[in-house]
Amino acid sequence: MKTRTALIVGAGDSLGSALARRFAREGLTVCVARRNAEQLEPLVESIRAEGGNAHAFGCDARKEDQIVSLFAAIENDLGPLAIVVFNIGANIQFGLRETTAQKYYKVWEMACFSGFLTGREAAKYMVPRGEGTIFLTGATASIRGGEGFSAFAGAKHGLRALAQSMAREFGKQGLHIVHPVIDGPIDTPFVRERFADLVASRPADGLLAPNDIADTYWYMHTQKRSAWTFEFDIRPWLEPVTNI
Amino acid sequence: MKTRTALIVGAGDSLGSALARRFAREGLTVCVARRNAEQLEPLVESIRAEGGNAHAFGCDARKEDQIVSLFAAIENDLGPLAIVVFNIGANIQFGLRETTAQKYYKVWEMACFSGFLTGREAAKYMVPRGEGTIFLTGATASIRGGEGFSAFAGAKHGLRALAQSMAREFGKQGLHIVHPVIDGPIDTPFVRERFADLVASRPADGLLAPNDIADTYWYMHTQKRSAWTFEFDIRPWLEPVTNI
Amino acid sequence: MKTRTALIVGAGDSLGSALARRFAREGLTVCVARRNAEQLEPLVESIRAEGGNAHAFGCDARKEDQIVSLFAAIENDLGPLAIVVFNIGANIQFGLRETTAQKYYKVWEMACFSGFLTGREAAKYMVPRGEGTIFLTGATASIRGGEGFSAFAGAKHGLRALAQSMAREFGKQGLHIVHPVIDGPIDTPFVRERFADLVASRPADGLLAPNDIADTYWYMHTQKRSAWTFEFDIRPWLEPVTNI
Amino acid sequence: MKTRTALIVGAGDSLGSALARRFAREGLTVCVARRNAEQLEPLVESIRAEGGNAHAFGCDARKEDQIVSLFAAIENDLGPLAIVVFNIGANIQFGLRETTAQKYYKVWEMACFSGFLTGREAAKYMVPRGEGTIFLTGATASIRGGEGFSAFAGAKHGLRALAQSMAREFGKQGLHIVHPVIDGPIDTPFVRERFADLVASRPADGLLAPNDIADTYWYMHTQKRSAWTFEFDIRPWLEPVTNI
Repeated sequence: MKTRTALIVGAGDSLGSALARRFAREGLTVCVARRNAEQLEPLVESIRAEGGNAHAFGCDARKEDQIVSLFAAIENDLGPLAIVVFNIGANIQFGLRETTAQKYYKVWEMACFSGFLTGREAAKYMVPRGEGTIFLTGATASIRGGEGFSAFAGAKHGLRALAQSMAREFGKQGLHIVHPVIDGPIDTPFVRERFADLVASRPADGLLAPNDIADTYWYMHTQKRSAWTFEFDIRPWLEPVTNI
Repeated sequence: MKTRTALIVGAGDSLGSALARRFAREGLTVCVARRNAEQLEPLVESIRAEGGNAHAFGCDARKEDQIVSLFAAIENDLGPLAIVVFNIGANIQFGLRETTAQKYYKVWEMACFSGFLTGREAAKYMVPRGEGTIFLTGATASIRGGEGFSAFAGAKHGLRALAQSMAREFGKQGLHIVHPVIDGPIDTPFVRERFADLVASRPADGLLAPNDIADTYWYMHTQKRSAWTFEFDIRPWLEPVTNI
Repeated sequence: MKTRTALIVGAGDSLGSALARRFAREGLTVCVARRNAEQLEPLVESIRAEGGNAHAFGCDARKEDQIVSLFAAIENDLGPLAIVVFNIGANIQFGLRETTAQKYYKVWEMACFSGFLTGREAAKYMVPRGEGTIFLTGATASIRGGEGFSAFAGAKHGLRALAQSMAREFGKQGLHIVHPVIDGPIDTPFVRERFADLVASRPADGLLAPNDIADTYWYMHTQKRSAWTFEFDIRPWLEPVTNI
Repeated sequence: MKTRTALIVGAGDSLGSALARRFAREGLTVCVARRNAEQLEPLVESIRAEGGNAHAFGCDARKEDQIVSLFAAIENDLGPLAIVVFNIGANIQFGLRETTAQKYYKVWEMACFSGFLTGREAAKYMVPRGEGTIFLTGATASIRGGEGFSAFAGAKHGLRALAQSMAREFGKQGLHIVHPVIDGPIDTPFVRERFADLVASRPADGLLAPNDIADTYWYMHTQKRSAWTFEFDIRPWLEPVTNI
């Protein structure tokens, strides 16, 4: 009998990897996807070294046929999806007049359109089974726009609208749709470099630790359907709360 | 000396026409744009018959070069833009699994991407002058998703993020960015046909009259910059309030 | 035949006075109320000097019997209320541990409970006539809490809940309920003293001019019921937008 | 050495009891408070029968001196508070014109003012220790008003403002402030009687099970401060999502 699987679309080095490791530890067969499958090898190997079950997939999530194939391959060959996480961001900042049409489109394609394809394919497999958890990862920009964020906030707002629409359509059919709002800096090499002063001013737990975020994702997956959470915010203790 | 101009991108038969007529009555040279310029002839003629000044432009607002040319033509030939209204909707309703990638993309392209192009070009001309009013027309779906509305709500949420980002970038530079939230049915032939029972159950002023909405748009344009409104909702008295 | 009247509860020297003057200029008999009626004499005299009709009432808006008497006196002696504005604030800032129970209670009593009494009495007279406009004045703190603002934000959030509940109950009965969100500093002697540096850094129209806010209140009153606004924000152009 | 304690203010038969049982099972000394301490005896006995540690306190949470004494008694005699839950509701529904001043006041006093006293005293003890979790329990009415809900929504909005203000003041001092939004009917005898048709139309897990809500409260308490949640909604799978 096939084990249950979890898919992470956008399995980068930070939150995506932490989720993969956590789900594997919980016994799921973990499928990680990003454009370049080779970059996933260290992650897959480290999960296997821990005794977990992991598979890497090269997939451009903006391409409908590639997403359709990805889901088919997992469902047919590895096992039914219990969890799907969409985790692709595209955080850029440009004044509006400097935002080219191509840039605006690319950000939406990566951070919103890919989420639509992922959510739709997940629903196709999960609805007939009447169960499954789908995470569409949000950010502060899902909640409010900001100077220089017309492209990023536009895509993230669109993804939130998708999550709400899915929750209203599929909740009653047994699917748990979750929209986490990551409302603070995640502890990544990129953040440590770009916001060096901020990072230096904080203690070690003043940034979002990917493993701690992953813990909350896992918890949400375990909620009984009598008491489901759709949206929650998450931030380091030193970060001021943004209204959601 | 050239008179000031107003541009309505998405000048349909309802709100778009009402706005054009109103702005013309206030003395602005009105430029109306939609894909098929011929369909604008009756509107342009009726404005001219009233003594107003109106010009029709054929423009596919999803095409960057066409929007760029549209703004250049108006600014070079007719006069500086005092008001720009983005007014293209694309209200469709489909279950998520029935929403093709093409449909999802088209809705976004029409109702969000075109708004980005329009807002950006408007800002390019208005920022150096330190004045001008830009309306990006919202809807209930700008505020919340809904079953069957992943595409429409996604586009409208994206447009709201654009409006917020523009207000935060350009407000301090003297541009008045306004995001009206149309939170109820507008009195159009389409609504009268599709929601016949609802319409029959209400008195004549139980639907949003396009001229009355246009009145509020005009008022917002006249606000002094000491006291600007960014967002307001508008609905018929019989319609329950949606939180914004 | 009696003329229509307007009542401003909390007619201070700033927005309250500007509203009174504006409504008087539009031909309404203006009734202004605050705890100490004598302080209203200069306002009443200046309105009369302009040819307007104004009456001062001493009223502690936290006392049910006084509010009931106030409404009865106006409706019986002066004319039917077309507009009622609740405009009492109580902006204090204290750390939570320094907020005494009495302070917390007083702020709520002034800024929320008085609004409940005012709104309820207004509805009693207006509902049978099927018309009337009720403004419950909000602030940034109506939308979000903040460090040191537990009392003030608590009262303002409560007032917003009242406004929403009234709009949902009375909109369909013909009453126009409006919740303006004053999202920036009003140009008052108090603000000029307390935020001297901010004020010095801005041009003259960088603060909210009371007359300009009053203009928007008046406009909202004139909206036809086919197209009513429930909530709008208002701020100076130099002020960053707060999400509502 | 004294064990850590948890206090539930408003320990009714439903969620309050479930929280008490859960916290006791996790090893905390549980203190439950309601106006009539005798009504808490069955709960305390059942917790003790399971091997837990529980204490009942009679306390009118609207009285400052009683709340102050309650906290002093626990902190001095039983052990340092690790968790404080404010869980008093007051859900009534009346048309605004039928809402007496006394009723409006009582609802606020129970559901908001008591929360202020509870939160303030909790902060006084927890801030010097730099740790502790405070839950202020919200509801759908925390997020939006509704016809007949001016009193209840007013109090719940005020409580949310308190929670936000506390999170912004005390988060950076190490306190975890949480605002759960209970967005659906809890499975209680009252709900089963009042909404009999709704209940009959749903499967057993179509209402919020108190134990399942308690599970999420406990989880939130265990979050590391690198990744704290301030607000989350929770509802049964069959309940449509309300925007938070």
